[in-house]
Amino acid sequence: MMICTALVFFMHLGFAFLEIGLTRQKNTINVLFKNIFIITVGLLLYAIAGFNLMYPGEFNGYIGFAGFGIAAPLTEAGTIDLAYNEGYTYWTDFLFQGMFAATAATIVSGAVAERIKIGPFMIFTVLYVGIVYPIAGSWKWGGGFLDQLDTPFYDFAGSTLVHSVGGWAAIVAVWLLGSRIGKFKDGQIKAIPGHNLPLATAGVLILWLGWFGFNGGSVLSADPELTSLTLVTTCLAAAAGGVSAAFVSTLTFKNLDLTMFLNGVLGGLVGITAGADQMSPMDAIIIGAVAGAIIVFAVSLIDKLRLDDPVGAIAVHLICGIWGTLAVGIFGKLAGWDQLLSQLIGIGSYALICIITSFLIIYTLKKTVGIRVSEREELEGLDAHEHGMDAYPDFRLNEH
Amino acid sequence: MMICTALVFFMHLGFAFLEIGLTRQKNTINVLFKNIFIITVGLLLYAIAGFNLMYPGEFNGYIGFAGFGIAAPLTEAGTIDLAYNEGYTYWTDFLFQGMFAATAATIVSGAVAERIKIGPFMIFTVLYVGIVYPIAGSWKWGGGFLDQLDTPFYDFAGSTLVHSVGGWAAIVAVWLLGSRIGKFKDGQIKAIPGHNLPLATAGVLILWLGWFGFNGGSVLSADPELTSLTLVTTCLAAAAGGVSAAFVSTLTFKNLDLTMFLNGVLGGLVGITAGADQMSPMDAIIIGAVAGAIIVFAVSLIDKLRLDDPVGAIAVHLICGIWGTLAVGIFGKLAGWDQLLSQLIGIGSYALICIITSFLIIYTLKKTVGIRVSEREELEGLDAHEHGMDAYPDFRLNEH
Amino acid sequence: MMICTALVFFMHLGFAFLEIGLTRQKNTINVLFKNIFIITVGLLLYAIAGFNLMYPGEFNGYIGFAGFGIAAPLTEAGTIDLAYNEGYTYWTDFLFQGMFAATAATIVSGAVAERIKIGPFMIFTVLYVGIVYPIAGSWKWGGGFLDQLDTPFYDFAGSTLVHSVGGWAAIVAVWLLGSRIGKFKDGQIKAIPGHNLPLATAGVLILWLGWFGFNGGSVLSADPELTSLTLVTTCLAAAAGGVSAAFVSTLTFKNLDLTMFLNGVLGGLVGITAGADQMSPMDAIIIGAVAGAIIVFAVSLIDKLRLDDPVGAIAVHLICGIWGTLAVGIFGKLAGWDQLLSQLIGIGSYALICIITSFLIIYTLKKTVGIRVSEREELEGLDAHEHGMDAYPDFRLNEH
Repeated sequence: MMICTALVFFMHLGFAFLEIGLTRQKNTINVLFKNIFIITVGLLLYAIAGFNLMYPGEFNGYIGFAGFGIAAPLTEAGTIDLAYNEGYTYWTDFLFQGMFAATAATIVSGAVAERIKIGPFMIFTVLYVGIVYPIAGSWKWGGGFLDQLDTPFYDFAGSTLVHSVGGWAAIVAVWLLGSRIGKFKDGQIKAIPGHNLPLATAGVLILWLGWFGFNGGSVLSADPELTSLTLVTTCLAAAAGGVSAAFVSTLTFKNLDLTMFLNGVLGGLVGITAGADQMSPMDAIIIGAVAGAIIVFAVSLIDKLRLDDPVGAIAVHLICGIWGTLAVGIFGKLAGWDQLLSQLIGIGSYALICIITSFLIIYTLKKTVGIRVSEREELEGLDAHEHGMDAYPDFRLNEH
Repeated sequence: MMICTALVFFMHLGFAFLEIGLTRQKNTINVLFKNIFIITVGLLLYAIAGFNLMYPGEFNGYIGFAGFGIAAPLTEAGTIDLAYNEGYTYWTDFLFQGMFAATAATIVSGAVAERIKIGPFMIFTVLYVGIVYPIAGSWKWGGGFLDQLDTPFYDFAGSTLVHSVGGWAAIVAVWLLGSRIGKFKDGQIKAIPGHNLPLATAGVLILWLGWFGFNGGSVLSADPELTSLTLVTTCLAAAAGGVSAAFVSTLTFKNLDLTMFLNGVLGGLVGITAGADQMSPMDAIIIGAVAGAIIVFAVSLIDKLRLDDPVGAIAVHLICGIWGTLAVGIFGKLAGWDQLLSQLIGIGSYALICIITSFLIIYTLKKTVGIRVSEREELEGLDAHEHGMDAYPDFRLNEH
Repeated sequence: MMICTALVFFMHLGFAFLEIGLTRQKNTINVLFKNIFIITVGLLLYAIAGFNLMYPGEFNGYIGFAGFGIAAPLTEAGTIDLAYNEGYTYWTDFLFQGMFAATAATIVSGAVAERIKIGPFMIFTVLYVGIVYPIAGSWKWGGGFLDQLDTPFYDFAGSTLVHSVGGWAAIVAVWLLGSRIGKFKDGQIKAIPGHNLPLATAGVLILWLGWFGFNGGSVLSADPELTSLTLVTTCLAAAAGGVSAAFVSTLTFKNLDLTMFLNGVLGGLVGITAGADQMSPMDAIIIGAVAGAIIVFAVSLIDKLRLDDPVGAIAVHLICGIWGTLAVGIFGKLAGWDQLLSQLIGIGSYALICIITSFLIIYTLKKTVGIRVSEREELEGLDAHEHGMDAYPDFRLNEH
């Protein structure tokens, strides 16, 4: 579990690399700053209140709070209670969950990149990671009403609780923020290429590595049989997602598109996350392959809806998150109409809370301090204006 | 074991970084695409057939097949058989071995970089990773004839079974493919520098990290004494290989060559791999130091043979793989003439199967669809022609 | 423990990325070469003599030596003694400590970057890592006189034994070496920007990951309660350090400075290292936050003292190392005047040995072979002159 926590932490480098790789050089410092902000502030907020909002103990099933700060439970004799849980300690639990919490904001970060004001983004992060994410999480992982359904909603490692929670906020933010200058022009969709595909590729491989911890650790025990099966389904879904996206996109667009391949891998990973411990290897391959195909069409669809998502976060995390959550009702050990209905209830509940809260936060910010940088700042880059820095200040070409 | 699997997976980022770092910018997307292709397709192929070709159970010692797909063994009562092996589960075993399988093709990828057509390379990968590698692997790790010798051939973690298997195919492919334009001109050998040494260095350090899993996991148990000794021999051989290659190359060429240092580290790692669990620390240092020296001379030799290997894969994986395999008969607990003879038989057997099969595959591809891009494509870069993409599309220099 | 060792090894990529990111492109190969040199030679030296200098068994408390080479202790029957220590083997112990040893020289490497001659730096590394570090380490971790005080000096994972040991040598080296050309000009302090902030950021996140192993492994057992608490205090201190440094620097300099954020994270990590197992989460947040604030002022102060430290190593490793060591006497389970006094004795002892030995080594080198490259070499870059290589030889811009 502790090693899994380390791997999930490392995902933040994956997200950072992916986001800077797929965006323009002039906004690189801004992207890095946001990502470091999210992981540091996210952890602190989770220690202050998030953990106890998400795991409030006995509560009404919708919202509960066990108090500020974190402290390991004590036995009656005043010593630390080692029986907190089999297989991991209170501290491990906190840290593992804390690493998850920050992920939701990272997803949004990618979607709103290259034009959001840093200040309002920081405020949004504090509210969404600090309050919305843990309350929403308590509905299932804290033992809330979605866990109390006759056929409980099932989300093993967060296709909905983590990825869709980020994805819903991403779509709301993108819609309120508008597209980058030049993305949709004269009725045409223009691709705005990023600046560093090697780092984007590294980001995806680091995220895949992190998923070993994300899904492996979510078994919440050291049961080797289940943990190892989970790693197999995770990796096969990733592989199938990548191959399927590359195949479909090559058929459709006639070129071997690296970014589609990469997003397919991520789509497969998000897709398997809700049921990674419930699937057979063959189920995992099918779920991943469908996720990969979805990615190709979802990216096109989102473009056609005039939603400008520089890194494809909505397609990967929201659409494949929904697909993965539904897949628990269709494939594997839990498949059945009752389960599918519970999955739909879960998806709808999270859609509701996330859309409403993220709209309230972002719309308020838009109407008060404003959320978008000026046209000049956008054109000249956020790095120069928000940070007074350059990502590669001394980079030179030799003159062969 | 599961953590080791994660580390071996991560080696694919190491290979990708090393290969893009040592090749030219115009082929970067192509290299990344090949590497993502190998890991995703490699895993799927291993699930479909490779694992059961490599571990067929009882068989004739040369080729066997336990059927398509993967499924954990069941007890007579129909529940999962937890006694599959001490120390790891069926699923862990599959995933760990699957991560290895993809490595063989990655080695070839580096050697043929910058001029091979992507389509034929993908076909080669499918055949070589999907069929040749597991059959060859079954000869030893699957309990085949090399494991049945009176003094069994010994290859702890794959100096021969993984590295040489990749290396033999690399040398055949390089020979059939020819050298890059400009490499050998007017009887001169021209160095063609890569484009990103920081990423190449990162690649080597990531590979070293991965070797903790590669060799550590190959103990196939959690025996702490043996596993920790294996990590010590692995790290000392890497260190000695690097220092030795840097020393020899500085004496020979009078400059402190970073790439020789890096290839020396890799040579030391490949060299210790066959006997990492059989050596004392001092043995490991000697084996690594010899491997480092070998690298310097092998790179020169391969150049003189007019074989164009952009990343030094043949020197590192084939030559040091052979050295490491022989070293098992010379140093450590198994040393002796009988063992040395068995090592030679093993090396010869793998040379035979790998050279024949890779020749058949690549020669057939060459005579049918062709394996080499056009001169114009090579000069303008594979990224533009095969992928329609650029690795750093928005990279700009600031104007101080 | 073995996994922790792998993570600590990986910190060397973090240090390398941080150092190249914050220095100029023309010295990149030099930085990479130094870092690969340190980890390879450091490990070999530690095997040859360092481990037995640091853990000499029974000794006079100041200096002892258990002989050259490493060999696992045997039982009377001649078999390996598995009772070496609970929780880890002799080999694990060696490798884990060996990875630490190399860290001290890496810290110096950053401070002297861009102007030191590579040869003398290599000699310094050999002497300091091979002899000074392990002798100094024996004073506490080897059971020496600082461990024998009535209230023993306490340094959990090396705020003083690792970070300050590197930091003291860094400050001596920077002072003897002088500042880079152009850093202090006409009474002005000029910032000399690095060349790759994405890699610098990656370096910090990799270091943070490595600290999971650094502090987690220093529990020297698999006690899950204590290990997991240690990881929580480590991560919270890192987060608090980053946020605090970003906050203070934004108040002071009015821009959202990414490098201050990053150095704050590192400062928090160094600060918590001495007492990571003794603190509550709240203590850790305070220690980290103070470290973050210290960083901002220390960087300014070091500039004002005309000490040119390109990567901020002195502020991070020395100043925050001292702070962290003192904090053990102020916060947490050991807090008290006696402990604080012991911490001061420890800090003073290490200051003494490190300043004296590093001065002797570097001053001797300065007066004999010289330690600084020529003005022309410095201006044109160490890569061209010391290595005859370029870090990005084929990097080109496309012409959109």
